[in-house]
Amino acid sequence: MIIVLKPGFTEDQLKHVTDRIEEMGFRHEVSRGEQRTLVGVIGDEAKLRNAPLKAIPGVEDVMGILKPFKLASREFRQQPSIFDLGHGVKIGGGHLILIAGPCAIEGEEILYDIARQVKAAGANVLRGGAFKPRTSPYSFQGMGEEGLKLLRKVGDELKMPIVTEVMDPRQVELIDRYTDMFQIGARNMQNFNLLSEVGQTKRPVLLKRGMSASIEDLLMSAEYILASGNQEVILCERGIRSFDKSTRNLLDLAAVPNLHGLSHLPVVVDPSHATGRPDLIPSMSLASIAAGADGVHIEVHSCPEKATSDGPQALLPKQYAELVKQMKSLATLMGMTIDPLPA
Amino acid sequence: MIIVLKPGFTEDQLKHVTDRIEEMGFRHEVSRGEQRTLVGVIGDEAKLRNAPLKAIPGVEDVMGILKPFKLASREFRQQPSIFDLGHGVKIGGGHLILIAGPCAIEGEEILYDIARQVKAAGANVLRGGAFKPRTSPYSFQGMGEEGLKLLRKVGDELKMPIVTEVMDPRQVELIDRYTDMFQIGARNMQNFNLLSEVGQTKRPVLLKRGMSASIEDLLMSAEYILASGNQEVILCERGIRSFDKSTRNLLDLAAVPNLHGLSHLPVVVDPSHATGRPDLIPSMSLASIAAGADGVHIEVHSCPEKATSDGPQALLPKQYAELVKQMKSLATLMGMTIDPLPA
Amino acid sequence: MIIVLKPGFTEDQLKHVTDRIEEMGFRHEVSRGEQRTLVGVIGDEAKLRNAPLKAIPGVEDVMGILKPFKLASREFRQQPSIFDLGHGVKIGGGHLILIAGPCAIEGEEILYDIARQVKAAGANVLRGGAFKPRTSPYSFQGMGEEGLKLLRKVGDELKMPIVTEVMDPRQVELIDRYTDMFQIGARNMQNFNLLSEVGQTKRPVLLKRGMSASIEDLLMSAEYILASGNQEVILCERGIRSFDKSTRNLLDLAAVPNLHGLSHLPVVVDPSHATGRPDLIPSMSLASIAAGADGVHIEVHSCPEKATSDGPQALLPKQYAELVKQMKSLATLMGMTIDPLPA
Amino acid sequence: MIIVLKPGFTEDQLKHVTDRIEEMGFRHEVSRGEQRTLVGVIGDEAKLRNAPLKAIPGVEDVMGILKPFKLASREFRQQPSIFDLGHGVKIGGGHLILIAGPCAIEGEEILYDIARQVKAAGANVLRGGAFKPRTSPYSFQGMGEEGLKLLRKVGDELKMPIVTEVMDPRQVELIDRYTDMFQIGARNMQNFNLLSEVGQTKRPVLLKRGMSASIEDLLMSAEYILASGNQEVILCERGIRSFDKSTRNLLDLAAVPNLHGLSHLPVVVDPSHATGRPDLIPSMSLASIAAGADGVHIEVHSCPEKATSDGPQALLPKQYAELVKQMKSLATLMGMTIDPLPA
Repeated sequence: MIIVLKPGFTEDQLKHVTDRIEEMGFRHEVSRGEQRTLVGVIGDEAKLRNAPLKAIPGVEDVMGILKPFKLASREFRQQPSIFDLGHGVKIGGGHLILIAGPCAIEGEEILYDIARQVKAAGANVLRGGAFKPRTSPYSFQGMGEEGLKLLRKVGDELKMPIVTEVMDPRQVELIDRYTDMFQIGARNMQNFNLLSEVGQTKRPVLLKRGMSASIEDLLMSAEYILASGNQEVILCERGIRSFDKSTRNLLDLAAVPNLHGLSHLPVVVDPSHATGRPDLIPSMSLASIAAGADGVHIEVHSCPEKATSDGPQALLPKQYAELVKQMKSLATLMGMTIDPLPA
Repeated sequence: MIIVLKPGFTEDQLKHVTDRIEEMGFRHEVSRGEQRTLVGVIGDEAKLRNAPLKAIPGVEDVMGILKPFKLASREFRQQPSIFDLGHGVKIGGGHLILIAGPCAIEGEEILYDIARQVKAAGANVLRGGAFKPRTSPYSFQGMGEEGLKLLRKVGDELKMPIVTEVMDPRQVELIDRYTDMFQIGARNMQNFNLLSEVGQTKRPVLLKRGMSASIEDLLMSAEYILASGNQEVILCERGIRSFDKSTRNLLDLAAVPNLHGLSHLPVVVDPSHATGRPDLIPSMSLASIAAGADGVHIEVHSCPEKATSDGPQALLPKQYAELVKQMKSLATLMGMTIDPLPA
Repeated sequence: MIIVLKPGFTEDQLKHVTDRIEEMGFRHEVSRGEQRTLVGVIGDEAKLRNAPLKAIPGVEDVMGILKPFKLASREFRQQPSIFDLGHGVKIGGGHLILIAGPCAIEGEEILYDIARQVKAAGANVLRGGAFKPRTSPYSFQGMGEEGLKLLRKVGDELKMPIVTEVMDPRQVELIDRYTDMFQIGARNMQNFNLLSEVGQTKRPVLLKRGMSASIEDLLMSAEYILASGNQEVILCERGIRSFDKSTRNLLDLAAVPNLHGLSHLPVVVDPSHATGRPDLIPSMSLASIAAGADGVHIEVHSCPEKATSDGPQALLPKQYAELVKQMKSLATLMGMTIDPLPA
Repeated sequence: MIIVLKPGFTEDQLKHVTDRIEEMGFRHEVSRGEQRTLVGVIGDEAKLRNAPLKAIPGVEDVMGILKPFKLASREFRQQPSIFDLGHGVKIGGGHLILIAGPCAIEGEEILYDIARQVKAAGANVLRGGAFKPRTSPYSFQGMGEEGLKLLRKVGDELKMPIVTEVMDPRQVELIDRYTDMFQIGARNMQNFNLLSEVGQTKRPVLLKRGMSASIEDLLMSAEYILASGNQEVILCERGIRSFDKSTRNLLDLAAVPNLHGLSHLPVVVDPSHATGRPDLIPSMSLASIAAGADGVHIEVHSCPEKATSDGPQALLPKQYAELVKQMKSLATLMGMTIDPLPA
């Protein structure tokens, strides 16, 4: 950590700074340059980060050298993490997953119908929401536990691992009884108590990036889960807020190699929420794989115009099947494996 | 609601659209223009909003005419809402509140010292965090219930209404026993279960705007609380994410008159979190009042360099006292009243 | 175009609105709904767009139905445009171009060396800046005409089409004498006089998206060139401004299929400026091709640490050669052709 | 400047770094910390800034210590700059200007009528556009020299200093013959050749912040003008791009004290373009003055519904007159002087 002093600082102020550093148990080096004087602080930067050194009179700026996340970092673990999701499906280190299913669970028949079709197309993880975070209190809020039971039943029958969203720390125990993988939605990426709670379970967590979260923010939220004891965090890029309104959000595909450089955790891309437009989902799915993603998450519905949530952005099962063909060819070219499900 | 058909739509597609509209119990009007054909849907737009009409083949766009919030709107209540916070302090309709205090509650002596000084300066609401949403799992997370007790005690002794943050639906009951007003932080603005939970209490809620929340998103979150039965929501502008990194966030002061035009709810501004810079807080506080804000929320600490949270952005008590003098003159010019506390 | 009246509008105000519409030569239809009254305006929307109808008392909103660009639109030209850049190189409709070269032209030897290597690797268009738009007046501003001469000479010797940036309407004539294709940089995307000026030449124009330009803004800028008579506009996505500072800009890859849906013009991606990071350029180049881009623009320098401009984001020639191999395999899979240069 | 080496750097890489530093004529200090090794470079940072040190193998990051602008900085000039605009009107150092007038010059009678009314209301600078940068090639592009003549004539008759926009380096000489102050629009803030050109005149330049320009970018563009010899630059905050579409742009009022802290140059606010909404302009004008602005720029039109440009955002003359009354009271409270015009 480097402390930059203001031009015209006093020697008393410098002494105050160095006294505080020593008081906290660190060593320092003073470097008097032509235009600025710097104080380098030597020691574990993580311990220093919370000290409000910038509030000391005479200090112009405080510059950190290291990243604030540890367990999520490449320095902590050099090799990419690989997680087992059940039914022979792995993610990470060359294993690509294809997550598909409806936005919301709406009933047994329709869920089974969609699940059967996405499995036939080649998807190897089934998604469906039972608790839905909706912007409006007047929108459909999900089927709750009833939905979880249906998702579990369909997943078991089709031998597909399932993933469903958890919105509230009070739901963790309930959902843990049904799901194979938790999903934390974008709006809850910094719901720190929820992160800690799923961090105490033993299931993989698909952590979606918040709409205004930086790459570092996302990794800090992953760190909450990791620091609580759960090592199986899967990052998910699903678009961020931007000024352009022709797409629902702005897909940040560079996040994929960027996160892979900083972290050992797998990265899934969700082009459905990122674009909100079925016409853009196929090319963004292919681009995700070319960018090195470890998974592609797509909403599929057999009757989008009657869906209770996010219908306009869903692919039809036949569109999805067509897309999976292209994704498979590309995965092969990229040297990625899509683990097959049992028949 | 207006449905725009794609150029080259078929009559079958048009019939499908109008059938769906009638099926849902609405009337329609078809208008064939030179370049596009439109279908106007007549009826309660709120009920239509959740129908995924855009997913119907042949539909190019669906345009809403009305705002999606009701209870929060000016059309619902023409006059500005006025809420009573206790100890004679009101907000809204000409009553301006001055909220001040430390970011986090750190101990009885320091809290009492800061509270006494901000009261002497002219603040009429005391703030302090007992549960802290921190980006890093390694940062100080707050004193918890112990902190709530201290805040309650100091508030009682000084006869100041108090406000403190609630992060988790499981904390609502506990915090309700101590606080006069709940605060929902920016990261929880779309924690919908938390909104519903505080919506079932009878205390005012200070709802902070999320970092990437639009004006409409903020009002939809307020709508969650209102629709749960609690009418006392106070909106808070605290800066949004932007590309410029010279301030912590970007203060959107136009949100104040913008929200006042759309809603009857009071609007507080928090220049401390919006700018993160003590040198900018005074002028942004004055600008907030000139913009018509119903409250100004400022973090004050008697020793910022030792604060456990957000020290670098706190004002010193003497800086705050100087600022209150200026805010009072400006409030008088603007015709606003700052309700005095009992001695 | 649809005019939404405010609740409580007067019949006089409605009459004023319809009078204005008739005065301008349009027909109208009034539709009185349960919550709002609408006035549909029938006629050429393009002529209406400049009328400030929203300023009329009683008007709440004015909603356009059509896109404001014409010549750039898919409705104007259904098939993708294909342009010939010289030396047998085409772009669009299945022809993929690979643009490479140094950020700035620095001297004959170094330019020839880089050009020879990128041609050998498989690039088929050579880039190099002679006039450089630099954020700081104290940075290297380019070699000017001297640089143009070198670029022309090297392009001729290697039989590569060349592209170079024009910053000023006064330079158009000069640069037109040397280059095969103009480049308009991001900072000049809305330099409307410059757009009109290159619109009067007969050379293809590579138009880079501005840092805060919406998709529609970019197409409106293309429209300036097209409306001035030059039909050969190539759009270029090069990243937009965002709150995340881990990359130089934020690459909006969904812009590729989004633009292809709205326009017949080819779309090039520039991962060098979009990310500013050599470690991210390879995967973003592949993702661009998977997204359907018609070209990939990459800065290459044989000694980045001595480059006069943007050195830290340049690939080394050997890194570029490695990347081209992968891009070629992917282009084949995607059914794209990269036109070879003469030996 | 501080160079951070990657973990696992080699001694050869370190030597390469220090050799390059010495080769460029600087001294250095190596500091080996627990987690990273740093190389401090001692010497004139401005000369180092253009060296692509980050491209050297083994380098993780390069951190600048100083701001890249000089002539615009507070360190260069401690006292606020004060400029004389003519007819006794000054800006800066306590002198507040009120700029008003139509967006575009449309004809003598209407211009004279508006100008007379804004002068009567209390404005002391007249604005009007003769060359208009319009997003669409099909919109009104301004009256050109004819418009300049009208503006000059009306300014002379009413004894008001005038300001008008310059879009193109080729127009500088022409406009210089008519105007008292140049305006550079947001879209041209980084039109560096235009900046250099007005930098060679002797007139004040009102430099508007670009829609995605950081505070530092704005000051670097001012630096171009200052470095070309013209010391009279007035900065203008006019809103930046954001995700919220309820206002035209997002007014960044904290830019006012932020710029005042970094620079000696005066700062004007333009709430008309920032909000695009007449209902928000009055409160944002007052907030600007409370924030310490040196000027407020407002578009006024006597018949907004027939204006050729930006009608919907114009205030009516009587609305403007009402607002000026409030601005004057506030200016008095803030200790600012509005220089009166001759009768």
